[in-house]
Amino acid sequence: MTIVIGIDIGGTNTKYGFFDRNGNCFSSGEINTPCFDTAEDFVSGLSNLLKKETDKIAANHQVIGVGIGAPNGNFYNGSIEFAPNMPWKGVIRLADMFKEKLGLPVLLTNDANAAALGEMVYGAAKGMKDFIVITLGTGLGSGIVVGGKLVYGHDGFAGEIGHVIVFPEGRPCGCGRKGCLETYCSATGLTRTVTEMLENTKMSSSLRDLKTDHLDSKQIFEAAKAGDQLALKAFELTGKILGIALANSVAYTSPEAIFLFGGLANAGEFIFDPVKAYFEMNLLQIYKGKVKILPSGLKESDAALLGAASLIWEE
Amino acid sequence: MTIVIGIDIGGTNTKYGFFDRNGNCFSSGEINTPCFDTAEDFVSGLSNLLKKETDKIAANHQVIGVGIGAPNGNFYNGSIEFAPNMPWKGVIRLADMFKEKLGLPVLLTNDANAAALGEMVYGAAKGMKDFIVITLGTGLGSGIVVGGKLVYGHDGFAGEIGHVIVFPEGRPCGCGRKGCLETYCSATGLTRTVTEMLENTKMSSSLRDLKTDHLDSKQIFEAAKAGDQLALKAFELTGKILGIALANSVAYTSPEAIFLFGGLANAGEFIFDPVKAYFEMNLLQIYKGKVKILPSGLKESDAALLGAASLIWEE
Repeated sequence: MTIVIGIDIGGTNTKYGFFDRNGNCFSSGEINTPCFDTAEDFVSGLSNLLKKETDKIAANHQVIGVGIGAPNGNFYNGSIEFAPNMPWKGVIRLADMFKEKLGLPVLLTNDANAAALGEMVYGAAKGMKDFIVITLGTGLGSGIVVGGKLVYGHDGFAGEIGHVIVFPEGRPCGCGRKGCLETYCSATGLTRTVTEMLENTKMSSSLRDLKTDHLDSKQIFEAAKAGDQLALKAFELTGKILGIALANSVAYTSPEAIFLFGGLANAGEFIFDPVKAYFEMNLLQIYKGKVKILPSGLKESDAALLGAASLIWEE
Repeated sequence: MTIVIGIDIGGTNTKYGFFDRNGNCFSSGEINTPCFDTAEDFVSGLSNLLKKETDKIAANHQVIGVGIGAPNGNFYNGSIEFAPNMPWKGVIRLADMFKEKLGLPVLLTNDANAAALGEMVYGAAKGMKDFIVITLGTGLGSGIVVGGKLVYGHDGFAGEIGHVIVFPEGRPCGCGRKGCLETYCSATGLTRTVTEMLENTKMSSSLRDLKTDHLDSKQIFEAAKAGDQLALKAFELTGKILGIALANSVAYTSPEAIFLFGGLANAGEFIFDPVKAYFEMNLLQIYKGKVKILPSGLKESDAALLGAASLIWEE
């Protein structure tokens, strides 16, 4: 059977899996990313591991390529460029490095683009030609598909909806500017909203009992489930900002659906309900009632690896 | 020689031209759109004219198709849908109607999409794969090209950047919502800005001598050329809003260039200088210095027809 290796590189862990076209996993594993001093050591170490696994299944299967999802990954040159949370700095041509070690075609893109491809090949976007995937984690990532193809743009960096400025002079963003969408609509953004509400309002909340530096989006989700008014209001505000921003997004590529994926999307109705309401309310008339806001069809644990593998299936 | 007919349908005039692949015009003309009571009469009348012209050149040339640019034109079904400035209401399946009369392939899209195709086939976007054309007329239209293909979206209505909301609770827009980009950045938007400045400030200006209902963007341009401070400030403000909005646009499709086209773009440096400055200032770091803001490479008089003709050349 024909097999593709998917690799999901993160600042903490790097995961890999061997998949067939139907998403069946034949082998998988994980290594600690920062335990390698250099990117060269990392590539060597991981390649050795992958070669051993490949040999094990070689009798029945043929590995045809390697797809990699990585922070700040650039599809065109197969490099990661100035990724803030990675142990190795500058421009690292990972695809070429793996290709040399493994002797296989290697394609690389960023995590959110990989998530969009995964959704198209294995998930809830099967058969769709025009859709957007929004990943709501530490930041807000996005992958935009137009006419069945992922949009890379002229430089490989298309799809940075998290860095659309929604409030000029708004919250400082890690990118150095102010008011980017991801400073409000992400797990981190939600936590910042709650922190501001705890400081600036007198609303009673179970979250006041936590030390602020222990506050995270999971606790806010738990509080919301228990009916905490401040937590509920923070979700409502987050969903409102995201809904309005996504309504604006439709004016670019007019997608059939927008998928919400990752940490914050797991809060279900707490985030989906306000997003859907404010999205529909703010759409241009010609788009109203046409664009679905949907959860991902992939299990979060598999999505990054399946998305990375999809890079090869899609080429 | 192989020839394509380009038609540019407007609420006042409809123009047509016979073009070869190099943009040479073999015949052209114009009819008055609202002098036909029904869309059927309009199609019949124009088709008769086109057939006569076709017969004249038939000895040496072969007409292979008809491309139409029209307000609210939908590429997928070849119709114009609820175009506010057209004499005929509702959904009008113009492409099918012309196809029946002329026995030729007919493709239709909206004016801004046609402008983008024209720029790619005949203008300054030749050889570019990823770019955006912004038309600054009565409203703000846009055509987005990704990977060498015009983006139509799942419903044929992609590329409505003029209706991205830039100021929630801002100026009322013809679309029924508030704060859309085109209420600020268009010939009409500039005029609204000047009207507000005349009302709300004490700035001296030659434009105060005009009756407000006679004010238009050309007079504001003339005043700016003569050094009128209020006119200059209005251009600066318009360019600032547009520059910031276009910086956000880059985060979607990461284009190589953004072309400004039409009425307001003819104001040259008065609009280009502030757009370029605020665009670059507001770009996400990874895009800085990479994206050009350029004037159209087409003469405005030819652009709509060449753009319409390009629909056929591009298929």
